[in-house]
Amino acid sequence: MRTAICEMFGVEFPVFAFSHCRDVVAAVTNAGGFGVLGAVAYSPERLDAELSWIDERVGGRPYGVDVLVPARLDTSVADPAARLAEAIPERHRDFVAHLLRKYGVSELDPVPVSMSAVADEFGRRVTARGAGGLVEVALRHPIGLIASALGPPPPEMTAQARKAGVPVAALVGTVEHARRQVAAGADLIVAQGSEAGGHTGEISTMVLVPQVVDAVDVPVLAAGGIADGRQMAAALALGAEGVWCGSVWLTTEEAETPPVVKRKMLAATSADTVRSRSRTGKPARQLASAWTREWDEAPESPGPLPMPLQMLLAEAAMTRIGRAAESGNPGAQELAGYFVGQVVGQLNRVRPARRVVHDMAEEFAAAVERALAAVSISPGPR
Amino acid sequence: MRTAICEMFGVEFPVFAFSHCRDVVAAVTNAGGFGVLGAVAYSPERLDAELSWIDERVGGRPYGVDVLVPARLDTSVADPAARLAEAIPERHRDFVAHLLRKYGVSELDPVPVSMSAVADEFGRRVTARGAGGLVEVALRHPIGLIASALGPPPPEMTAQARKAGVPVAALVGTVEHARRQVAAGADLIVAQGSEAGGHTGEISTMVLVPQVVDAVDVPVLAAGGIADGRQMAAALALGAEGVWCGSVWLTTEEAETPPVVKRKMLAATSADTVRSRSRTGKPARQLASAWTREWDEAPESPGPLPMPLQMLLAEAAMTRIGRAAESGNPGAQELAGYFVGQVVGQLNRVRPARRVVHDMAEEFAAAVERALAAVSISPGPR
Repeated sequence: MRTAICEMFGVEFPVFAFSHCRDVVAAVTNAGGFGVLGAVAYSPERLDAELSWIDERVGGRPYGVDVLVPARLDTSVADPAARLAEAIPERHRDFVAHLLRKYGVSELDPVPVSMSAVADEFGRRVTARGAGGLVEVALRHPIGLIASALGPPPPEMTAQARKAGVPVAALVGTVEHARRQVAAGADLIVAQGSEAGGHTGEISTMVLVPQVVDAVDVPVLAAGGIADGRQMAAALALGAEGVWCGSVWLTTEEAETPPVVKRKMLAATSADTVRSRSRTGKPARQLASAWTREWDEAPESPGPLPMPLQMLLAEAAMTRIGRAAESGNPGAQELAGYFVGQVVGQLNRVRPARRVVHDMAEEFAAAVERALAAVSISPGPR
Repeated sequence: MRTAICEMFGVEFPVFAFSHCRDVVAAVTNAGGFGVLGAVAYSPERLDAELSWIDERVGGRPYGVDVLVPARLDTSVADPAARLAEAIPERHRDFVAHLLRKYGVSELDPVPVSMSAVADEFGRRVTARGAGGLVEVALRHPIGLIASALGPPPPEMTAQARKAGVPVAALVGTVEHARRQVAAGADLIVAQGSEAGGHTGEISTMVLVPQVVDAVDVPVLAAGGIADGRQMAAALALGAEGVWCGSVWLTTEEAETPPVVKRKMLAATSADTVRSRSRTGKPARQLASAWTREWDEAPESPGPLPMPLQMLLAEAAMTRIGRAAESGNPGAQELAGYFVGQVVGQLNRVRPARRVVHDMAEEFAAAVERALAAVSISPGPR
């Protein structure tokens, strides 16, 4: 294929694959797409090792890294040395303890995860300074893109990337944010619709993409609701130069999605996701689960905390819930979930990531041919 | 163009235009599309007159009628003779009175609208028997389609239409509903995404359409998020055979949208709509307004009633609000709103409906050509 994106990034097929799993990143890059490693869960050391692993496998083919940089942070949590855990109110801890008891998780797994250890880890990562460390590590590798998921990229990040000749991508959910991101130096905009998994706005891909394309003068990728070649063709018809997909990789062979969650995803319909603040503190689309229901609807719920406090609280609990779920605890299996978009309803079988790319390419070609067949627009004047 | 829909309905361009305004219906039909008159606001006598008006102007070109038939109704309100108004709790009436006072509407317009008169009117229309009367009237005209917006069409409606040789269309928001509608006799499915105006589900057009196309063996129109030719091309790429648009006509020259609401729509961004139960009792996307905010967020709000009670309460109030808004009352202008989809952010100028169709056709052709240019898929094996 030929789009501005294909030339800009040296890819054959303008599919950007966001994944926390290095195997998916390498597989998509090697299949002619562009893998993007979600780095938020990694320490700088671990990220370095993961990227070296990828470097050894992609033979110079292009891939990128995504970091999560919140535009604004509570000053109370901006200092990575601060004990984030101390900022979590007793009422919220109690509600989590109540949930674990109610769903029979605590009895099975009485060893609590040290919240302050998780907190220190998170404090390092989900702050401007923490993300800065990841960016530094990433730029030591031959990456072709660095992406920032929340708010405009910090000026230092853009400056570092520019110096290294690496384009910066920014995810946005509104036209206004797209304009702001380009003004802040973004070289590529990922216009992400409300149907996407993870942190997402309220405007759908169908509505958002053409408006963003009209508003900015950099290339635009469409994200949200894209898991097959028909949806990719639709994205290009809307004016995008390529697509950014996350959910579709979660059920691939390579994905490290926990088996219980993968099974839930394979069984889910598109009505089984919810945009909830219960996992990170910001609205993020995920599988609907007992966790999201209890936080969002239970009368005794204290309501989610702001990011990153809720993220910390949730991840500490999810570590235990995940362990219990995989060992067969039915209550834990009800609580278990993960970020995923509405396309989860289409994900009904496990495929290798490489096969997903090939299927998309074939479906894409067929969709364009079908749209063409529908048009009998004569070459002369209408 | 040639799609199954073009042949099935004898149109040149598979754009179905839903509008409550006969002028829009006639203009779209005469421009090569297919106008569909929203009949819910009409009495049978008025509908008859409107359709005769259209008949005289379209010279045998195809158009259709849309009725609102709720699948289930409270038995308490199923009898059109029952005084619906009596079923509205005091608390809800009081909240409306409070809103009108708070926004300065009651002082300006002290003449209350008789709720029981509105109720009788609504009772006739928004019930299976009421809609049946409209269907009977519609089938006396040379209509090419009858559509049902809520739930499976009642068997009598399908039988009447079939006898008259008129295809029945059904609007759906999930794959499950699409299957059910086809089983109930629908000849055409309108798969409507969450971004659409009016009654709408939670799944986006991008995600919903391909799944519905795969699930049913009748033609599918895409609805929700479609107001230009790029979005139409996207819909066809997703597998739809045509599109169903509502919002885009609200800001046309012909539309009878009240001037205040039209101005609000022209100024609104895609972030200015909300899916709220405050206007009809069912989740319906509309302009965000003081009305939706107060009902959905004010601590003193009693919460919306079920349909059709909330619709009755809201419409009686909206009659007064609209009158006050048009006479310049700023509080009433804050309360005023109407059903519209997220595409409202694209509607920035007033065009004749005919021009909208022509623009869509041109943009559609350009979008398909652009998608084609992106593909350099060789004709040989890949």
